[in-house]
Amino acid sequence: MIEARETQTPPVEAPPRRRAPAFTAERIDMSHGAGGKATHKLIEGLILPAFDNPALAPLADAATLVCGGLRLALTTDAFVVHPLRFPGGSIGELAVNGTVNDLAVSGATPLGLSVAFILEEGLETAILRRELEAMAAAAKRAGVAITTGDTKVVERGKGDGLYIVTTGVGVVDPALSLSATSVRPGDQILCSGTLGDHGIAILIARGNLELEAEVLSDTLALTPLTKALQEAAGPGLRFMRDPTRGGVGTVLNELARDTGYGIVIREETLPVREVVQGACEILGLDPLYVANEGKLLAVVAPDRAEAALEALRSVPGGEEAALIGEVREEPARMVLMHTQFGGTRMIDMLIGDPLPRIC
Amino acid sequence: MIEARETQTPPVEAPPRRRAPAFTAERIDMSHGAGGKATHKLIEGLILPAFDNPALAPLADAATLVCGGLRLALTTDAFVVHPLRFPGGSIGELAVNGTVNDLAVSGATPLGLSVAFILEEGLETAILRRELEAMAAAAKRAGVAITTGDTKVVERGKGDGLYIVTTGVGVVDPALSLSATSVRPGDQILCSGTLGDHGIAILIARGNLELEAEVLSDTLALTPLTKALQEAAGPGLRFMRDPTRGGVGTVLNELARDTGYGIVIREETLPVREVVQGACEILGLDPLYVANEGKLLAVVAPDRAEAALEALRSVPGGEEAALIGEVREEPARMVLMHTQFGGTRMIDMLIGDPLPRIC
Repeated sequence: MIEARETQTPPVEAPPRRRAPAFTAERIDMSHGAGGKATHKLIEGLILPAFDNPALAPLADAATLVCGGLRLALTTDAFVVHPLRFPGGSIGELAVNGTVNDLAVSGATPLGLSVAFILEEGLETAILRRELEAMAAAAKRAGVAITTGDTKVVERGKGDGLYIVTTGVGVVDPALSLSATSVRPGDQILCSGTLGDHGIAILIARGNLELEAEVLSDTLALTPLTKALQEAAGPGLRFMRDPTRGGVGTVLNELARDTGYGIVIREETLPVREVVQGACEILGLDPLYVANEGKLLAVVAPDRAEAALEALRSVPGGEEAALIGEVREEPARMVLMHTQFGGTRMIDMLIGDPLPRIC
Repeated sequence: MIEARETQTPPVEAPPRRRAPAFTAERIDMSHGAGGKATHKLIEGLILPAFDNPALAPLADAATLVCGGLRLALTTDAFVVHPLRFPGGSIGELAVNGTVNDLAVSGATPLGLSVAFILEEGLETAILRRELEAMAAAAKRAGVAITTGDTKVVERGKGDGLYIVTTGVGVVDPALSLSATSVRPGDQILCSGTLGDHGIAILIARGNLELEAEVLSDTLALTPLTKALQEAAGPGLRFMRDPTRGGVGTVLNELARDTGYGIVIREETLPVREVVQGACEILGLDPLYVANEGKLLAVVAPDRAEAALEALRSVPGGEEAALIGEVREEPARMVLMHTQFGGTRMIDMLIGDPLPRIC
């Protein structure tokens, strides 16, 4: 039998609790799902206080559960992307890769996935079949099995075709200690490739934007990238995160807040496709806040940065990896960017919701 | 490091595969979510073939993942019940208890839950807060922590207030071998209490039925009942299941199909409240197919049946437990009921969807 104390799921490392901001909205609006400031207020001001427990507090991509000498990672994601299919991918592929990636950036090897479908009455079977096949193919590529599931149907008009929730459980590599609390001033920040491709691909698929050039979603299982990083950086690997909803700007802000340090990035090192940059300018968006679905942000010790960069570049999907900045003592809890024109600008949390239902 | 062969998640026991029925519907309709024949066709004819893997095949309430000498149970459930609140419970309480129960009937001690919310734009914060509190209270009663989550928002009209998906991971008691393949002719079938309370409570809450007497949902964490059974029946405990969507009739049909044996029940032993029986008669429903959310069906070896019954009756929520039938060699793969009037009737799988969005 498992002993009771081992099933009490203590977190491996719990950063000190922050004072929750007030959640004062009377109703939920679209910004609460955008991954930025409003989402944080909802989670920290309403959901976390209700569910208060030590395993939940760190707000990481996955919870850590300790059992029988193993550290297990548990992560869940709801996918409500619209449209269901877009250049470079679809909701099914996204649903598998997104959850695989949350395990990967937690340093966990997947044991299995579960999937829940909420289907809208009238959904064409051909569409469902296509997404099931996309999920199966993505799971096969990622080397993980979909092991259990649930299916519900809601009346016409009470859904939007198909929502998918995937949950993953994995085993955390005992050699790793990935956490904001492991990050130190001087650590280098790496990004595995170009920013904003997924978000712009969705906008084009919605017909919000007509472009000559094609932009494909970057949806991808990050496991080969995270494994390469782990080998190259060893214990010098401090922290990994996949910058999805809210983009790189949001992840860096969370990192600044959780470490208490400053994050300084250099604009000219940010990998952004020309067509994505152009689309962002037309739409008044900043690629720093646009969602990615196959990109990795990593923080590594300074003496492992070059090896880590080389390792990322050697893996498919990491060819355009770049060193984009570093962690500093100051300015505490803030993200600064040195611009291409020699100036400095503060990168704040995303406000509002420029891109609803992006994943 | 975890060895690769341990993370390949083989099922502990995989019953022989059945030939999948064809899924020929061109569109999804409400019956595909009802838990009966149409749901089985969707799952076995479309979803299972797409995701084909050994861990998924047994179609149990939870998948079994083997890792580092432990057997882990993984289970997920989507909750789309309408209305969100009903006599005796609410969607939040249901979402926690439902997943806790899928772990409990798998013989697993919960390690942690994850939760995904799909919120409709315009949802009142007060309603969300109430459900968060209901979830927290249910989790506390069940002795499990909600350890991670995700929140998405869909536009007004693309949801129905609030959908919740909960996933649970637990550790399976190594002394147990619960499976349809453990069931033998002569084994006794126990039911932990009255049938159909949840489904009828939902119908009353929807205003489909006006009754003088109150009917409360039976939503309840079954862990105390499953623990009591495990102690009383030991290795004589063969199989447990919570008869939710589709009711006891559906679970018994699944059991007959998966064991290859016949199931014979006695109508006069079925515990049904008088008010629920009356409501079913008015509505043309059979309480055998009406959903329960706090009931347990168990199959035990004949020499442990009396001890198991006493154990169930000694636990709150099990006071009205009854011995309702037994497993026989014949009629193979069928469920028969001896009626109160001395006749015999076949209990088939539920067809159609008398009660949409019951959980």
